[in-house]
Amino acid sequence: MSIHAVHRAHNHLAWDNSIPPVITIKSGETVSFDCLDASNGQITADSDDSALAALDFARLDQVNGPVYVDGAEPGDTLQIDVLSIETADWGWTATISGFGLLHDEFATQTLKTWKLDRRGGFAWFDEAKGIKIPLRPFCGEMGVARAAKGAFSTIPPYHTGGNIDTRHVVAGSTLYLPVEVKGALFSCGDGHAAQGDGEVCGTAIETPVKATFRLTVRKDKPYTKTPHFKTPPVTVQGEEYYCTSGLDPDIKEATRAAVRNMIEFLFLEKNLTRTEAYMLCSVAGDLRMHEVVDMPNFLIGMMLPMSVFEK
Amino acid sequence: MSIHAVHRAHNHLAWDNSIPPVITIKSGETVSFDCLDASNGQITADSDDSALAALDFARLDQVNGPVYVDGAEPGDTLQIDVLSIETADWGWTATISGFGLLHDEFATQTLKTWKLDRRGGFAWFDEAKGIKIPLRPFCGEMGVARAAKGAFSTIPPYHTGGNIDTRHVVAGSTLYLPVEVKGALFSCGDGHAAQGDGEVCGTAIETPVKATFRLTVRKDKPYTKTPHFKTPPVTVQGEEYYCTSGLDPDIKEATRAAVRNMIEFLFLEKNLTRTEAYMLCSVAGDLRMHEVVDMPNFLIGMMLPMSVFEK
Repeated sequence: MSIHAVHRAHNHLAWDNSIPPVITIKSGETVSFDCLDASNGQITADSDDSALAALDFARLDQVNGPVYVDGAEPGDTLQIDVLSIETADWGWTATISGFGLLHDEFATQTLKTWKLDRRGGFAWFDEAKGIKIPLRPFCGEMGVARAAKGAFSTIPPYHTGGNIDTRHVVAGSTLYLPVEVKGALFSCGDGHAAQGDGEVCGTAIETPVKATFRLTVRKDKPYTKTPHFKTPPVTVQGEEYYCTSGLDPDIKEATRAAVRNMIEFLFLEKNLTRTEAYMLCSVAGDLRMHEVVDMPNFLIGMMLPMSVFEK
Repeated sequence: MSIHAVHRAHNHLAWDNSIPPVITIKSGETVSFDCLDASNGQITADSDDSALAALDFARLDQVNGPVYVDGAEPGDTLQIDVLSIETADWGWTATISGFGLLHDEFATQTLKTWKLDRRGGFAWFDEAKGIKIPLRPFCGEMGVARAAKGAFSTIPPYHTGGNIDTRHVVAGSTLYLPVEVKGALFSCGDGHAAQGDGEVCGTAIETPVKATFRLTVRKDKPYTKTPHFKTPPVTVQGEEYYCTSGLDPDIKEATRAAVRNMIEFLFLEKNLTRTEAYMLCSVAGDLRMHEVVDMPNFLIGMMLPMSVFEK
């Protein structure tokens, strides 16, 4: 079995089916990707808030590839088995102007850098306060080229994947993406050491990663029209959650209220600033849709595992 | 410690602070509620589809109570500790015209009745196909009276609770609701033997329940402006999930697509009718908001535990 390699320099800044593949593999072969973080190297372990002011947005969210998978045809499904994801020993989280679910309420740009204890599998959010985050690394970006001609931003997710920011697609998971062009043209990037469902402040624990995937063409799942995935059977030891809810006839407003209410809880009960609380929701809190049928109000929950608090 | 009782006949069909309490308790006392199912007894274990055609909607979603809790004042929080929830030995699930997330795609009314194996803690969705649902009973309706005068339907949830249909508030959980009137005036009902996050087809496994709650006035959580809750630390043995996603600039359309894609998966891969698949999503599938910040597309996931399939 060959293991192919895609290097840091093999990256591109748009989904565009005219970008030539950097390697060609057979279906069922394995590829290792060495990816810079989503800032494309503009933020480092030593950066401070000034790095955010200097960010060149045109260089963000690069993806590494594309990989041409022999035999993949439009209408097929590309199966991506996540074999391993290795983070760097550092990461960052930020609130960025105009970005994030509550961007209008958090105008100040703030950068937080993290040390990642890869052996221990955690990172201190705040050691003095006893708040630590379990690491569950994955790639925020995993996608294939679209059939439509042209260059499409790597910021939004598409039916073909891309910036899906889906915390569940960790090592042991399998992702399925609909193939729209010959060879599929798979790329990935945007390493996350941990993230909650929603990524509410707009960033996770962003980190460079080495990701190894097995890519297989599937002819028998033609109904895959958006990203599908299978998670591995993980046994979760008893965790207590605290949940705040938001409700509104508009789902987005209900979602914003759920997050805002959790921020208020963390500010009042856990001695965090509102910006810290917003970041904690983004890296460890899960947005769930508890009720979507009892009109006119949708009920959205922000669920935070209390195990992040050691004290 | 007194245990108070609220009987089946002690029910009302609107949230209305002028409804006199059926009992008065001290803060910290325990109350047992004996509740009919959400059809208010119109559907029984022997009903068939014709019971749906005959449903009197004006009698649906009754709640039992209200209970006046001594000392509760507007601005306080009512703490509801869920001590136990006991279902009947039967339940029902239905698709009902004009109701449910995909109501425009499921015009036919269909009733499914269930036998609940309370000792085993499961119910067969389809024994021949080896599909069974673990029971995790809770009350869909838990609420207190609103400050606003008048009669408010028990169908939607409010900031004061009501039809929150939140699957996580099981025995061992604690719910917090903002008190808006003197005495709080707590009521509950709408027993569910199992439900996924979202309750997408509009009904769960509906069942009569006996629910026992401890009600406590909290003066120290004035930030509780919507339902908050704490879940118990449940150890979940390794479960594999299959997830379909939907994405769209409109969250509701993204959510509908995620459910539609799971129905298609179950129809094609698990030999279910589309109506069966829709019901299975409602009682066992969880809606999660994977990504809500990478504009213009929101990414919503419908996650179904594969452990419901024995074969």
